[in-house]
Amino acid sequence: MGLSKKDILDIESLSVEEIELILDTAESLKEISTRPIKKVPTLRGKTIVNFFYEPSTRTRTSFEIAAKRLSADTVGISASASSIVKGETLVDTARNLEAMNPDAIVIRHKSAGAAHMLAGLVDASVINSGDGMHAHPTQALLDMMTVREKKGRLSALRVAIIGDIAHSRVARSNTLGFGKMGANVILAGPPTMIPRGIEALGAPFTYHVAEAIKDADVIIMLRIQKERQGGYLFPSEREYAQCYGLTTERIAGAKEDVLIMHPGPINRGVEIAPDVADGPYSVILDQVANGVAVRMAILYLLLGGPR
Amino acid sequence: MGLSKKDILDIESLSVEEIELILDTAESLKEISTRPIKKVPTLRGKTIVNFFYEPSTRTRTSFEIAAKRLSADTVGISASASSIVKGETLVDTARNLEAMNPDAIVIRHKSAGAAHMLAGLVDASVINSGDGMHAHPTQALLDMMTVREKKGRLSALRVAIIGDIAHSRVARSNTLGFGKMGANVILAGPPTMIPRGIEALGAPFTYHVAEAIKDADVIIMLRIQKERQGGYLFPSEREYAQCYGLTTERIAGAKEDVLIMHPGPINRGVEIAPDVADGPYSVILDQVANGVAVRMAILYLLLGGPR
Amino acid sequence: MGLSKKDILDIESLSVEEIELILDTAESLKEISTRPIKKVPTLRGKTIVNFFYEPSTRTRTSFEIAAKRLSADTVGISASASSIVKGETLVDTARNLEAMNPDAIVIRHKSAGAAHMLAGLVDASVINSGDGMHAHPTQALLDMMTVREKKGRLSALRVAIIGDIAHSRVARSNTLGFGKMGANVILAGPPTMIPRGIEALGAPFTYHVAEAIKDADVIIMLRIQKERQGGYLFPSEREYAQCYGLTTERIAGAKEDVLIMHPGPINRGVEIAPDVADGPYSVILDQVANGVAVRMAILYLLLGGPR
Repeated sequence: MGLSKKDILDIESLSVEEIELILDTAESLKEISTRPIKKVPTLRGKTIVNFFYEPSTRTRTSFEIAAKRLSADTVGISASASSIVKGETLVDTARNLEAMNPDAIVIRHKSAGAAHMLAGLVDASVINSGDGMHAHPTQALLDMMTVREKKGRLSALRVAIIGDIAHSRVARSNTLGFGKMGANVILAGPPTMIPRGIEALGAPFTYHVAEAIKDADVIIMLRIQKERQGGYLFPSEREYAQCYGLTTERIAGAKEDVLIMHPGPINRGVEIAPDVADGPYSVILDQVANGVAVRMAILYLLLGGPR
Repeated sequence: MGLSKKDILDIESLSVEEIELILDTAESLKEISTRPIKKVPTLRGKTIVNFFYEPSTRTRTSFEIAAKRLSADTVGISASASSIVKGETLVDTARNLEAMNPDAIVIRHKSAGAAHMLAGLVDASVINSGDGMHAHPTQALLDMMTVREKKGRLSALRVAIIGDIAHSRVARSNTLGFGKMGANVILAGPPTMIPRGIEALGAPFTYHVAEAIKDADVIIMLRIQKERQGGYLFPSEREYAQCYGLTTERIAGAKEDVLIMHPGPINRGVEIAPDVADGPYSVILDQVANGVAVRMAILYLLLGGPR
Repeated sequence: MGLSKKDILDIESLSVEEIELILDTAESLKEISTRPIKKVPTLRGKTIVNFFYEPSTRTRTSFEIAAKRLSADTVGISASASSIVKGETLVDTARNLEAMNPDAIVIRHKSAGAAHMLAGLVDASVINSGDGMHAHPTQALLDMMTVREKKGRLSALRVAIIGDIAHSRVARSNTLGFGKMGANVILAGPPTMIPRGIEALGAPFTYHVAEAIKDADVIIMLRIQKERQGGYLFPSEREYAQCYGLTTERIAGAKEDVLIMHPGPINRGVEIAPDVADGPYSVILDQVANGVAVRMAILYLLLGGPR
């Protein structure tokens, strides 16, 4: 069975069966990264464009490594070194890339909807690796993979997502993804970071971190995006840490075998205490390793078969 | 038959037979980019350095994809991340690159003559991908390939090149290239954009767009390079569009099966109206696709045989 | 015999036998770069991350070419396009990279000790390609390779290292390396550029260039790092050139078959006169070529065997 779609744009457009297929495939491909020769010829002769309008180390590197371990060729484009400085529109850039016959375009863009628009313009597979505050589906998939790997299931788990819900594509994609797979998601954050219309995400929310953490099987801390907010959403980092940061004391309210997750890069001492980030419940680095596996799975499922 | 030269520096130094060889080879290699496995082992073990002192998406990406589809290894160097910030001269950078035994160096540089100088310093093949206002031979070759593909010939076609002739390496290389292949080139642009000594290019010129377009088989619109001109060459973008921009009305004066071309990135609504850029006569995206094919042909012809 | 260590961090931690093994291996691998097909499959399926926090053309390119000629996959990360702008610590970046299972991480960083810290955090091999004013071991190894290639030996040669000793990781690594291999190193530079505690390097020093050059078999000129010093260590470039720059006249005091070396990029007319840099005694470009060979050797010795 393959994935009968061209693009991975968001969690909404993936069925439960498709998510399971991606996670199963990722699990079986994960082993490749631990071999002495970390490479299979599956995608030899495929061209993958990594198109990053926003700075990124981990996601870009993760996709590039995933592609290379499948023997695909990669071409990287970053906004600073590109025609974007010459004022070209995304539509024109997309059409131009398409004319070079890439098999997939991985795109990160500051505008919500950029990946969808691109997907409508090109025959290549488009993989959304973050569009504004909208979606980051591969992050949600690697988070679900990590939880399933550790807990054996996703259904009926209590998953608390804590922080700047309003500005987080990770929060949106995870709320939808874990919800779709039968988990019970609860959102928490300061009032300034809970968006209007949050009910549409289909998960309850609270302004009290302790309430969200209570009996949680999984806690996903969101990154405080200092570079985006200009500091007007909370008085200070110290105050944020006191009210919403994840500390050992706060974890005590959760289940005994709780998993602590974070999409990275972490702000130590702000949204997460160092001893928690590095502690026994943290699976933050498992998330990174599973990121490569999930991206290999997606590239394989989109490009690996006959089209 | 091979290409018995080390470098591709400009159109002047290519004979009619060499241009035909490059175009024929590009035509035969173009099919590779449409295969499921877009890769042949021809240049395995060759090292190609892409040395871009000026920002570029399409040309750099085109060369990188061309090299990888021939299985060459590519190394990219951009000015911002290089020794150039440390004040090294181009000569020293060139000699240093040479000592690492690259097979080809693709160079874009803001100074006319940079590629020629480099070619004189290194044993590697040098491919000029744009040097100041001087030359951009691979652009001219892909333009000629596109016209030949659509029209079946180059000779006796009327080719209008319109815009900032004075500052355009594309205009120079295309005027020389199409002229060499027997086409009748006519240049048009505002007086501030027609250089002194334009007669040396061997093509007539006019300040009236309609006159250039009349009975044209091919119209090549040049990009208004906002980032270079500081706006002093024409009063406003709107006025430029009114006087020199390509619109559906203006095209009516050309032949019925006219081809509309642009080297990209386009300024929609300035030198070209959106409905023209996306219209039935536009072959702008064919140019991009042929760009990969022409660059594959050049790399193959320069590096593919025994040296 | 292999190299029974995980990392290459500095010269101190390499034994005489290990240095000889690296140089012997580099000599035998050097020939690959002169073949028509410059590639062997030795490191196929290995992932090498080039992590450059400081701009670099030659070292980064040298490592990338070395890796590709051994068929390894490379992923480049530069500070400007990375999570560093998001404020992540080096420790967290390192752990995240590690989770993606790279086989080696090549790091350049402005802080002394960065490579050591990284090596302690990750299972991957770490190769220090320059950490602050501390060490640049691959530069010292390629310098030793170049001298051994030209002179047939390192022992009992007189090696003068001239310039900004205080701020030069190249000076430190070379003093220790040549000293370890039995050469007699002498250091020279202006008083402002000779560090306190220089005696610990185990080499005599002088403020008089002529004294250092006298009877030298090898002269290693250091780069004046304008971008680091703010100009307060010497009155002007002209004065530096007059007092400490290497000129044909000054070379006359050295042995007849003296070798002139420089790690590059050179400041022509400052620390070295153009006719000296390009003259018959200069082996500056041999250094660059040997740089690729030494890096191939290190990657091969660290990653090539069973681990």
